[in-house]
Amino acid sequence: MNGLERLSLNQATIRAWGVREAVAACAQRGIAWISLWRDKVNEYGLERSAALLRSSGLRISSLCRGGFFPAPTEAGRKLALDDNRRAIDEAATLGTDTLVLVCGGLPAGSRDLSGARQMVEAAIAELLPYAAERGVRLAIEPLHPMFAADRSVITSLAQANELAERLAADMVGVTIDAYHIWWDPAVYREISRCGSRIFGFHVNDWLVPTPDILAGRGMMGDGVIELRRLRQAVDGAGYRGPIEVEIFNHELWARNPDEVLELVMERYLREVA
Amino acid sequence: MNGLERLSLNQATIRAWGVREAVAACAQRGIAWISLWRDKVNEYGLERSAALLRSSGLRISSLCRGGFFPAPTEAGRKLALDDNRRAIDEAATLGTDTLVLVCGGLPAGSRDLSGARQMVEAAIAELLPYAAERGVRLAIEPLHPMFAADRSVITSLAQANELAERLAADMVGVTIDAYHIWWDPAVYREISRCGSRIFGFHVNDWLVPTPDILAGRGMMGDGVIELRRLRQAVDGAGYRGPIEVEIFNHELWARNPDEVLELVMERYLREVA
Repeated sequence: MNGLERLSLNQATIRAWGVREAVAACAQRGIAWISLWRDKVNEYGLERSAALLRSSGLRISSLCRGGFFPAPTEAGRKLALDDNRRAIDEAATLGTDTLVLVCGGLPAGSRDLSGARQMVEAAIAELLPYAAERGVRLAIEPLHPMFAADRSVITSLAQANELAERLAADMVGVTIDAYHIWWDPAVYREISRCGSRIFGFHVNDWLVPTPDILAGRGMMGDGVIELRRLRQAVDGAGYRGPIEVEIFNHELWARNPDEVLELVMERYLREVA
Repeated sequence: MNGLERLSLNQATIRAWGVREAVAACAQRGIAWISLWRDKVNEYGLERSAALLRSSGLRISSLCRGGFFPAPTEAGRKLALDDNRRAIDEAATLGTDTLVLVCGGLPAGSRDLSGARQMVEAAIAELLPYAAERGVRLAIEPLHPMFAADRSVITSLAQANELAERLAADMVGVTIDAYHIWWDPAVYREISRCGSRIFGFHVNDWLVPTPDILAGRGMMGDGVIELRRLRQAVDGAGYRGPIEVEIFNHELWARNPDEVLELVMERYLREVA
């Protein structure tokens, strides 16, 4: 027991590495989990990635990501569903039970948030039987409201919970990312409400000032989020799964990857575990 | 009747102008309302600004702004209260019944959002009798959650409503700013809930992509907010007051002020009225 049993490296944190380098680095350091991104898996090869994971002994906490459902036309929405079915297949091949959904923003040219939200719900409902057959759970990740227009019209944990409750299926739940939900006065109430629907937990930090909207997230401990309190709340709701470190940050991406991984481990232990 | 009866120029939209230039420009164009900022009033002089407003016939929709209540020490919180009492006095002298509150972020060095929220509530409660004696209403402006750390721990209309309901005084209410609340799935329900507590309504737009966190707000019509629908909802809740155009935008600040004011009028009529 090194205290790192639940730590998962989300591959987005160290973009310089492909699947091979990331898997090797985690295995070498006794990190038990990894979360992969589809573009990186595609570069290395799907079957090859799956074989590498099996031989490494590393477990895969999630595949990032499905979603981006709203589109201006029926044809566009169908394309998105097709792509999500491929993502579900990839998750099953890789051996993870969780596909993270970044649900998508407003369709091009639209201001209709309600309509986009209905498109998201309809799409997840349509995907659910396909996902269930393959043993893949759909994890709705509410994004910070600053991404409402272009990345996710699902902007709070309450909204993700309501959506999951309406869909009422074992295979639909939520991924809780500290960066996206920390500001919410209802966050602890909504974490309790999730119960067994928590399919993933992401940690990182909110820097002050925020250097960049998309890629200005911080290393745990460098910002203002009460990470241990959030982790305890997530545990209190019954979650026992892996904890992904997912940080989009230009400055970290430019640093030596091995140093970043060491820092991830150190800060995870100090701020989260 | 030119359709501009409710339009108010919030001075932050045209930073090149001082009080004198902004008042003259509005009066010349038949804009009936203006909202002033304390720093600009201070530059021109408080009594002088009040006299100018009286002689121009322009009405002042609000003074921006009070707030920034949380502080690490008792002495710091007292300084904030003193400054807010001065702001209330200034509002009364200028002849506006509304002081906008940007409530403040986390105290330096703190991660305790709940604690900061309690400081906000305690401060407003303490200010209320002072404000009431001077006929100045305190308008809590929930800010976009991306400002939770450094500008306002009050991040949604629901939270502002709950706060105002707990304080339960005629002189406390909310200012609704489209930029800060448009993303919220509960926004229409919460606007209805405000009822007579709506003390102000600000319009602007959310650009995609957002060019800057603080000063990347858009001119009405350039972004994705359903402004007319929001205006109708605010009216539906019973609000009949002025509608402030408040846009923080580097690109607009660099343009010819007269052109910007013409554009404000044109877009207000096209997108809001």
